[in-house]
Amino acid sequence: MSSNHSLLVVGSVALDDIDGPYGMQRDLLGGSASFFATAASYFTNSVSIIAVIGEDMPQDHIEFFNSRGIDTSGIERKSGECFHWVGKYASDLVTRETIDTKLGVFADFKPSLRDAHKDVGLVFLGNIDPSLQLDVVDQANNPDLIAADTMNFWIAGNGGDLAKTLATVDVLVINDEEARELADEHNLVRAAEKIRNLGPHTLVIKRGDAGALLFTDDGIFAAPALPLEDVRDPTGAGDSFAGGFMGYLAYAGNLEPQTIRMAMITGSVMASFCVEQFSIDGLRNLTPEMIKQRVTAFDHLTAYDDIRLEF
Amino acid sequence: MSSNHSLLVVGSVALDDIDGPYGMQRDLLGGSASFFATAASYFTNSVSIIAVIGEDMPQDHIEFFNSRGIDTSGIERKSGECFHWVGKYASDLVTRETIDTKLGVFADFKPSLRDAHKDVGLVFLGNIDPSLQLDVVDQANNPDLIAADTMNFWIAGNGGDLAKTLATVDVLVINDEEARELADEHNLVRAAEKIRNLGPHTLVIKRGDAGALLFTDDGIFAAPALPLEDVRDPTGAGDSFAGGFMGYLAYAGNLEPQTIRMAMITGSVMASFCVEQFSIDGLRNLTPEMIKQRVTAFDHLTAYDDIRLEF
Repeated sequence: MSSNHSLLVVGSVALDDIDGPYGMQRDLLGGSASFFATAASYFTNSVSIIAVIGEDMPQDHIEFFNSRGIDTSGIERKSGECFHWVGKYASDLVTRETIDTKLGVFADFKPSLRDAHKDVGLVFLGNIDPSLQLDVVDQANNPDLIAADTMNFWIAGNGGDLAKTLATVDVLVINDEEARELADEHNLVRAAEKIRNLGPHTLVIKRGDAGALLFTDDGIFAAPALPLEDVRDPTGAGDSFAGGFMGYLAYAGNLEPQTIRMAMITGSVMASFCVEQFSIDGLRNLTPEMIKQRVTAFDHLTAYDDIRLEF
Repeated sequence: MSSNHSLLVVGSVALDDIDGPYGMQRDLLGGSASFFATAASYFTNSVSIIAVIGEDMPQDHIEFFNSRGIDTSGIERKSGECFHWVGKYASDLVTRETIDTKLGVFADFKPSLRDAHKDVGLVFLGNIDPSLQLDVVDQANNPDLIAADTMNFWIAGNGGDLAKTLATVDVLVINDEEARELADEHNLVRAAEKIRNLGPHTLVIKRGDAGALLFTDDGIFAAPALPLEDVRDPTGAGDSFAGGFMGYLAYAGNLEPQTIRMAMITGSVMASFCVEQFSIDGLRNLTPEMIKQRVTAFDHLTAYDDIRLEF
């Protein structure tokens, strides 16, 4: 990669109502770009959000992004309401159902990059319509790295544009069920091979509390999730993972195999902070020391002396 | 531990009928002790099985155990039929249902240790009635290490005896659903703390293709499962894990934190061989070289350079 380590994310800045074992929490700041940008902001001071919000988004949230050094000039406020997701978690904090999804101003989202955004180094295409993802790729001036997320809704509903997006993407970050559906293959190793043949040389498969798998030409890397005693809200864990992952790549400025592996650990670290609180609260007031301590916790979680078998 | 690294397993030697995406396979050698002892036999030449079989168990299978150096003098052949499990896997090779369970001679199993077995160093109490597990503990002369497995059926049905067994057990090896039911707690970190307070200082929680977690006074260690392209039959994976785990402890002869971590990796290695074939076939013809190569594959799967964040 060049020395331009700026990071741009296109996605949602939304409001969530989350029900579950801790009771109903209304009007929480949510959306893929919110989690992603907040997590990434600890690793690079050049993160920009491209998103649309409605009149009901409290300005405080935008000011929080500004306070983290995040460029919010690409967040357009329109008349109407924010994207609003209403979800309910079962007592296991894993199983969840969508109670309601109001698209609001997100229904007519047309991401538009200002000139200052077009020379970005790293782009993350959050989970939006693949035709809009393509549109963002077209607007950017040859970024060093394009990463993307997607979901079952687009895999089933807009496979044509998704295939075109994937052909331009370097890094795809999806969950295991999405990988299986995209490849039409249950076995994750075989699914990964099929998906990497569609475009992305690097594939990250997120598996919730089972961690995440990285597939590259260098082979497979398994990053565990940190086992946590207190999980309050898994919403945004995957986006926080992606933000930590991409933020670390922007920080390191290269795509060496060991850099991508450390980006996986950094993604897991940021996801672990996210799920301990509602909304982005777990990511709000971190210090470099807290992040480094949790990296050390991953070292202890994963390290073993390979005591050679002498037989 | 003392220098007595002999390993004794009490459990089932059974016949399985397995249906699934590869068609119905009948009368396969199965049972927890079969997988456990075969996996462990690569790490110590002193493995003994305590089990009961019926008239329908082909002598060839017993001779295979003998050929692996396994002591089969504790396998009692009785009139009647073997324990026989009939199961069906869904196309994902994860979801399974029990079609039939015939206890056969296993219904009256009363494990009896010969004098030669009583001085064993390491005991593994396979998944049988906790009252029989206790009986085995009583017969053994102060073994260095007692490990055990159990299942939901005993947790719900014989919790009293199970509590007595757990009080004598050093290492408990169970799966995540069993841990949750035993602790009545969904969060695995909290469940592990509760379970370790019941007796076992070391707890291994197996999570299928999500790997396994180790809980000790040294903290938590996460061993991934090796992502495999070809999985044919997950039956016995957990028992093969336990056999590799305990076999490695017998081989190493100590319970140092790094030894137990390497035992976890060894367990994952043996489970990965198991699921590639039906029955114990994936464990039949291994060489030390094949086992070492797969340990190296785990090294590559898990290792990362902790490139320190400089901020």
